[in-house]
Amino acid sequence: MANVGIMGAGSWGTALALLLHKNGHQVTVWSISEDEVKMLSEKREHVNKLPGVKLPKDMIFTTDMEEAVKGKDFIVLAVPSPFTRSTARNMSPYVAKGQIIVDVAKGIEESTLMTLSQQIEEEIPNAQVAVLSGPSHAEEVGRGLPTIVVIGARKKEIAEYLQEMFMNEVFRVYISPDMRGMELGGSLKNVIALAAGIADGLGYGDNTKAALITRGIAEIARLGVKMGGAVESFTGLTGIGDLIVTCASVHSRNRKAGYLIGQGRTMQEAMDEVQMVVEGVYSAKAAVKLGQKYGVSLPIIDKVSEVLFEGKDPREAVNELMLRDGRPEHQALHWQE
Amino acid sequence: MANVGIMGAGSWGTALALLLHKNGHQVTVWSISEDEVKMLSEKREHVNKLPGVKLPKDMIFTTDMEEAVKGKDFIVLAVPSPFTRSTARNMSPYVAKGQIIVDVAKGIEESTLMTLSQQIEEEIPNAQVAVLSGPSHAEEVGRGLPTIVVIGARKKEIAEYLQEMFMNEVFRVYISPDMRGMELGGSLKNVIALAAGIADGLGYGDNTKAALITRGIAEIARLGVKMGGAVESFTGLTGIGDLIVTCASVHSRNRKAGYLIGQGRTMQEAMDEVQMVVEGVYSAKAAVKLGQKYGVSLPIIDKVSEVLFEGKDPREAVNELMLRDGRPEHQALHWQE
Repeated sequence: MANVGIMGAGSWGTALALLLHKNGHQVTVWSISEDEVKMLSEKREHVNKLPGVKLPKDMIFTTDMEEAVKGKDFIVLAVPSPFTRSTARNMSPYVAKGQIIVDVAKGIEESTLMTLSQQIEEEIPNAQVAVLSGPSHAEEVGRGLPTIVVIGARKKEIAEYLQEMFMNEVFRVYISPDMRGMELGGSLKNVIALAAGIADGLGYGDNTKAALITRGIAEIARLGVKMGGAVESFTGLTGIGDLIVTCASVHSRNRKAGYLIGQGRTMQEAMDEVQMVVEGVYSAKAAVKLGQKYGVSLPIIDKVSEVLFEGKDPREAVNELMLRDGRPEHQALHWQE
Repeated sequence: MANVGIMGAGSWGTALALLLHKNGHQVTVWSISEDEVKMLSEKREHVNKLPGVKLPKDMIFTTDMEEAVKGKDFIVLAVPSPFTRSTARNMSPYVAKGQIIVDVAKGIEESTLMTLSQQIEEEIPNAQVAVLSGPSHAEEVGRGLPTIVVIGARKKEIAEYLQEMFMNEVFRVYISPDMRGMELGGSLKNVIALAAGIADGLGYGDNTKAALITRGIAEIARLGVKMGGAVESFTGLTGIGDLIVTCASVHSRNRKAGYLIGQGRTMQEAMDEVQMVVEGVYSAKAAVKLGQKYGVSLPIIDKVSEVLFEGKDPREAVNELMLRDGRPEHQALHWQE
C-alpha cells in the first residue's frame, strides 16, 4: 500500500484518486478551492465533474498543500496545464529529494515551448517526474470501463513502480522511456482534434475526418521526432490512440470548438460557447512556433492556425489541403528502380 | 482522357466509375448480373448500392467482359474479394501485355494466404497490377465529400499515371511503392474492426475501443513488417486511417457483426443478421495462420478468433487481454541506463 497525494480535483484527478484507492492505496486529494473540498468531503461525489461516481469515506480532501505532498510515496499532478507551473512552484518547498511526481495533464507553454514535465522539473529540480497519458476519458475510468494507458519515466524502475501502483483488471498500464514523445503527442493532438471538429462542422464525412486524423498524426510525428521523441509514441496509445478518443467524443472541448467554427462561428464565439479552456487553440500557437523552430512542414496545423487566428474560411482551408501536389504518402519509402 | 474499364458494379465500383467520369475519362462498367446492368442502364443510378447518386448518360454498362477489358488504358477491379481470383482468370484472355489493373478490394485468400494483387498476378502474369486503398466509404465518395487514398504500384511511373487519372479537388491521391503493406493493412484491419464492434456490443466505452484500435494496428504492423510490408503503410491512411473509418461507421458489416456478438449472439447468428459477407471473419482465420507461419504474437486477433470459432465469452476475452503482464508499450524503445 502506498500513500498518495493527488493535486487537483477535476474529473481526471478525481477518477485517478478513486482508481488508486480501489487498488488499496491511501489517497489525499488537494484542491485550491475551499468549496470543492467541502463538497467532496460532504457529498463524497464530485457533483459537477464526475457525477454519479461515489467516493469512499476514507479518502481525504484538503486545501493544505503541505498535507497532500509531504511524506507521500508519490504525487499525481492533475491540475489543468495553465496551472501546472504555478502549482509545481507552490509545491516545491514540501517535495523531498527524489520524490516521484506523475503529471497527468497535457500542454505546451506558449512562451517557453516547454512540455509540462519540463516545467515541473524546472520548478522542482529535486523531484523525479513521470507522465501518464493515453486514451482515457475520466468519466469512463470513473465508471470502471476497460482503459489502457502508458506511464513514461526516465528510469525504468520508476515506471515499473508506478505501473504496479496504477494497474488493475480494468486499467492496463504500459511503460515507456519516451516522456518527450508522449507529452508532445498528447498536447499537439488537440490541434488535430480541432481540425477534425471543423470538418464535422462543415458537414464532411468520415473519410475526411479519418484522413485528417491520420495525416495529422503523421505531421505531429515528423515534428516530435525532430524534437527527440520516438515515432512509436505518436503511432501508439499516447498519440493516435488519444486522438481517436478525442475525435470520437461529443464531450471533447477541442472537437466541439472546431465543430462550431466549421459551422461558421469565429474562434472567440466558439470559445465563449464552449465556456472552458480550449487547449488546442493554445497548442496551435505553440505548434506553429515549433514547426518554424525545427524546420518541419505542418500543413494541417498551419491551416488550423489560419482559420483560428487569421479568419480564413474553413472550407477554403480544406480545399487548399486537398489540392496540394500529388506526392508519395511516406517520403521514406522508395521505389526499387 | 483515358479509356477505363471497371469490373464490378457494387457501391465502390460505381462510385469510382463516377469519379473517373467526372475527371473526363470514358468509362465502361462491367457486371456479371444482367439485371444490374439493365437497372444501371435504364435508371442511371444504382438504386440498391448507391441510391441518390445519378450516373451520366454516356457511361457504358455491360455484361460482356471483353468489351470492358479490351483496349482499355487501365482497368479497375472492384469485385468482392471472394470473386477476385475467378474474375481475374476470366478476364485473362482479353488483357494485353503490360495492361494496368488497379485492384480496389481487400482480402486474403484463406487457402493460399495470398493478397488480392498476388492472386491477380498469378492469374494474369502479363498485367501490371496496382492497388488503391485508404479511408473511403463509397457512399461519401459518391457524394463528392473530401477523401484521401493511396495508390500503390511496383513502378513509380504507373503509380504516378494512376494518381493523375484519379486525383481531383475532392479526391486526393498519394502514391506508395508498398503494395504488400497496403494490402495486408486493408485486409487485417477488418479483424480489429470486429474486436472494436465486440467492445461496443459489450457496452464498453471510447477508451476501450481506442485502445483496441491502437494496439490492434500495432499487432497487424508487427505481422505485416515481418511479411515484407513497410510500417508506414500500417500507421498511415491504408492502415489506421482505414480502420478508423471502419470503426466509426454504423454501416460497416465487420463492426456490426462484432457488435451483435458482443451483445451475446453467436458468430452464425450475427452473420445471418448482417446478411452479407463479413470479411473480418475470413481474415481472422487467415491472420491466425499468418501469425503462426511468421512466428508473430497476435493477442487481439487470437482472442477474436477464440470468440468467433471457439465460443469464448467476449467479456472474458477482453478481461484476459487487460490482465496480461505489464510491459513496455514498444519493445524497441530502451531506457538509457
